[in-house]
Amino acid sequence: MIVSLKYITVVIQLWKYVVADEIAKLFPNLFGQPSASLNAGDASSALSKDKSLKIGVVLSGGQAPGGHNVISGIFGEGRQRTTGSIMYGFRGGPAGVMKGKYVELSTEYVYPYRNQGGFDMIASGRDKIETPEQFQQAADTANKLDLDGLVVIGGDDSNTNACLLAENFRGKNLKTRVIGCPKTIDGDLKCKEVPTSFGFDTACRLYSEMIGNLMTDARSTGKYYHFVRLMGRAASHITLECALETRPNITIIGEEVFSFILFFHQGDFNTLLEEPSRQMYVAAKKQTLKNVTDYITDIVCKRAEQGYNYGIVLIPEGLIDFIPEVQQLIAELNEILAHGAVDEAGEWKKKLQPQSHELFEFLPRAIQEQLLLERDPHGNVQVAKIETEKMLLQMVDTELTKRKQGGKYKRNFSGQCHFFGYEGRCGLPTNFDANYCYALGYGAGALLHSGKTGLISSVGNLGAPVEQWTVGGTALTSLMDVERRHGAPFKKFASLRDEWALKNHYVNPGPVQFLGPRSTAINNTLLLELGA
Amino acid sequence: MIVSLKYITVVIQLWKYVVADEIAKLFPNLFGQPSASLNAGDASSALSKDKSLKIGVVLSGGQAPGGHNVISGIFGEGRQRTTGSIMYGFRGGPAGVMKGKYVELSTEYVYPYRNQGGFDMIASGRDKIETPEQFQQAADTANKLDLDGLVVIGGDDSNTNACLLAENFRGKNLKTRVIGCPKTIDGDLKCKEVPTSFGFDTACRLYSEMIGNLMTDARSTGKYYHFVRLMGRAASHITLECALETRPNITIIGEEVFSFILFFHQGDFNTLLEEPSRQMYVAAKKQTLKNVTDYITDIVCKRAEQGYNYGIVLIPEGLIDFIPEVQQLIAELNEILAHGAVDEAGEWKKKLQPQSHELFEFLPRAIQEQLLLERDPHGNVQVAKIETEKMLLQMVDTELTKRKQGGKYKRNFSGQCHFFGYEGRCGLPTNFDANYCYALGYGAGALLHSGKTGLISSVGNLGAPVEQWTVGGTALTSLMDVERRHGAPFKKFASLRDEWALKNHYVNPGPVQFLGPRSTAINNTLLLELGA
Repeated sequence: MIVSLKYITVVIQLWKYVVADEIAKLFPNLFGQPSASLNAGDASSALSKDKSLKIGVVLSGGQAPGGHNVISGIFGEGRQRTTGSIMYGFRGGPAGVMKGKYVELSTEYVYPYRNQGGFDMIASGRDKIETPEQFQQAADTANKLDLDGLVVIGGDDSNTNACLLAENFRGKNLKTRVIGCPKTIDGDLKCKEVPTSFGFDTACRLYSEMIGNLMTDARSTGKYYHFVRLMGRAASHITLECALETRPNITIIGEEVFSFILFFHQGDFNTLLEEPSRQMYVAAKKQTLKNVTDYITDIVCKRAEQGYNYGIVLIPEGLIDFIPEVQQLIAELNEILAHGAVDEAGEWKKKLQPQSHELFEFLPRAIQEQLLLERDPHGNVQVAKIETEKMLLQMVDTELTKRKQGGKYKRNFSGQCHFFGYEGRCGLPTNFDANYCYALGYGAGALLHSGKTGLISSVGNLGAPVEQWTVGGTALTSLMDVERRHGAPFKKFASLRDEWALKNHYVNPGPVQFLGPRSTAINNTLLLELGA
Repeated sequence: MIVSLKYITVVIQLWKYVVADEIAKLFPNLFGQPSASLNAGDASSALSKDKSLKIGVVLSGGQAPGGHNVISGIFGEGRQRTTGSIMYGFRGGPAGVMKGKYVELSTEYVYPYRNQGGFDMIASGRDKIETPEQFQQAADTANKLDLDGLVVIGGDDSNTNACLLAENFRGKNLKTRVIGCPKTIDGDLKCKEVPTSFGFDTACRLYSEMIGNLMTDARSTGKYYHFVRLMGRAASHITLECALETRPNITIIGEEVFSFILFFHQGDFNTLLEEPSRQMYVAAKKQTLKNVTDYITDIVCKRAEQGYNYGIVLIPEGLIDFIPEVQQLIAELNEILAHGAVDEAGEWKKKLQPQSHELFEFLPRAIQEQLLLERDPHGNVQVAKIETEKMLLQMVDTELTKRKQGGKYKRNFSGQCHFFGYEGRCGLPTNFDANYCYALGYGAGALLHSGKTGLISSVGNLGAPVEQWTVGGTALTSLMDVERRHGAPFKKFASLRDEWALKNHYVNPGPVQFLGPRSTAINNTLLLELGA
């Protein structure tokens, strides 16, 4: 049985006592173990000295800037302790563990990748170790290489996987211990003891540079609305951080649009629920694609009245996933397309539910075509390929044309579309991510040296200078049952967005710097979460 | 009569003696005047000291990083000389000059924009001062403000305009002198004395950062071909510089594709003509959209054989403009669409010439739809809206599918499309552009103080440290009749591209830095042109 951390977290929050038992059953060997803290200053004295370990490392899932530094940190910890440490990098993700595909990591091999972006040192993969056969393959590899430890660098699913692997290895009495490291640019894997996942800082700063430039462009030309879609399907944290950094006129937060997700979501936005202003809650519940379109259009019109015929709109990549009516339409389309082609005359539309039919007719023609034409090998609509920013731009354009005919809007609307994604997840890590990752790796190595398993490497006190950061390990149970102080970034944003919408408070932060005062700044999300 | 610098340059090169007369007639007061050099070190002693001038400045055309520093440079030169200087910024481009819309520039007003991107200090515009009435309006404004000088910051058209204005003002015995400044991120306005236009360096470095990140992404995932379209319609200099900086697998150079343009083009590529290897010349003559598709597809197949199922493809925004058969098709479509709608059954296609019909059928369906549906207010096809990178990606995909069926290609092809444009033209200027622009502005001010008119501010010795740069003014005639040592960047690229295609020599240069050793590097194009 596969359980994702996210699922567990959500469930735990609602039915804590019922499910705790379930979790305990899943992790009989690991459940209830305490978190570990290591003092970076005297780590070597507190832990088993001079012990040479054989450690494997694997990168799992999408890339995030800093991954190479995690490996460097593990490597550095081992070398600092003794010259006899051996380290293996599994190639191509978890599949490399199962198939025993690896490379032995030497100083010459590791060094050129330090402070470099990407995962190209050993590459990553999206396979999972989940069946009994796969667990056995992993165990065989661990035995063959005589591994003392395995470090899994990945997102929530990968860390869940790491825990299951730790549990499985312990159940098999293997000596191989397993430590996870929190990675995802999406920024949705965090708790009190794991304040952020690596890569988030770099990606947000890179996107913010681009957004800031577009703001300068908009203000200079005075005639464009830039619609910017940002990477991050499951959560809008990137969009929120970029908004806090650059102060755009319009920012759509997926979690706010979809109140159901808002209710159950583990992330930043659940404080909205804890203290829901009634108005906000009601607004959230009602949001549909039409509401989002109207929200944007209203601001465009209000800005036009103030003489601003330009602006910046941020849209999270996962917006569509947050809108139930779109999900419903897509489900119906998949069903219809599975049972035959659509006819030119449009007779097939009669098979749609009234609400879905209405939504389909509301969509721009290009998006309609995309929904009908672009299908994956299973015949399903490819939601990920829908260019949400173009869709919204066209819908806003159509709505403005209507209002113009009704005399309610008098200007000309001109939009430009952008998607910032791949270019951000492989950037050179910021100083924060470079340091944070090295510390995560160093901590993972130290945890293995102290005999820990089933923990996630965690670095704390991030608001202080690097020398004062703390290193430790966080138990799965801690990640499941955390005191949530999040929500501060969203609250800050919500308190300012009306001001940003109609006036221009644009900030162009410029490119990431590695030297000078701006090179050590901490991002808004982390700052607000730490300070709240 | 309006003559563009580019046109003049091309014509002059071919029929030098015939046209020189024409130019002389157009500029009776200015033609034949020598270039001026100013020694930055003792500028104030060489020129009229302590004279307070009233100077206007105007930004013309698209934005380029550094424009604010040109204004700061003019302002600084005036203030350095005397406290009595007055400076006006005309709002919204040349229209501001004609309508007398301006703001008086104070230290408080100018200072916050120093080293910032964009043109938002006084905004820009695309109007031209070209009719006798418009020249008179400009003269009226100059008289009303008692202007000693006007600095026009713009591209080739704007500098031509500046010269015509200088000529017109002198013809009217106005005291207002006119100086131009070379601006365009496209990098196609240059000669020996004006080695580069400002903004090119910043835009290229920003695009190169993104391209470098995509390279890291491609190498990490091992499964994507990133098709990147880069800003620059009239010339491929940006694409060439980014290629030299990052070393992608495939780079399409528009000028090479279109041999006719190659023949007549003023830019970097005419040395290809001067020393045409027969093979290259023949290849260039034959290029069509199908040839470009095959060129890319061939490399994809060869890389697959070597185990590389990923890569980077750079495409200049203006590629379509360089392909005659596409121009022909669009001309025919405009004609057909002007005389009635197209029928669903496709009967209208019979009106196309055979070659155009074949090309139309060769195009991906989405592009076909775009050609038929998206038209400007005059009913013409909107060429600028065609997403060339998507078009090429789809055509390559189709060709690979064919080869796969024929057993000549065995892998799966997966592409991602990107357009880097607006986010580059408004970036924070690099140290090079910031310094270069301040020097251009300072030089423009000094030229006005020395009584010059009809010159373009020019900064030389750019390969040396900033302290050794020279400042001066270049006459229009110099820009028309230059010793062309360009072509070195293209030659370098051409000599390496086969190596880059099949092996991976990727360079990820990272973000623009303002401190440290990387902050003073000079770009490849300039380095090669200066060093040749």
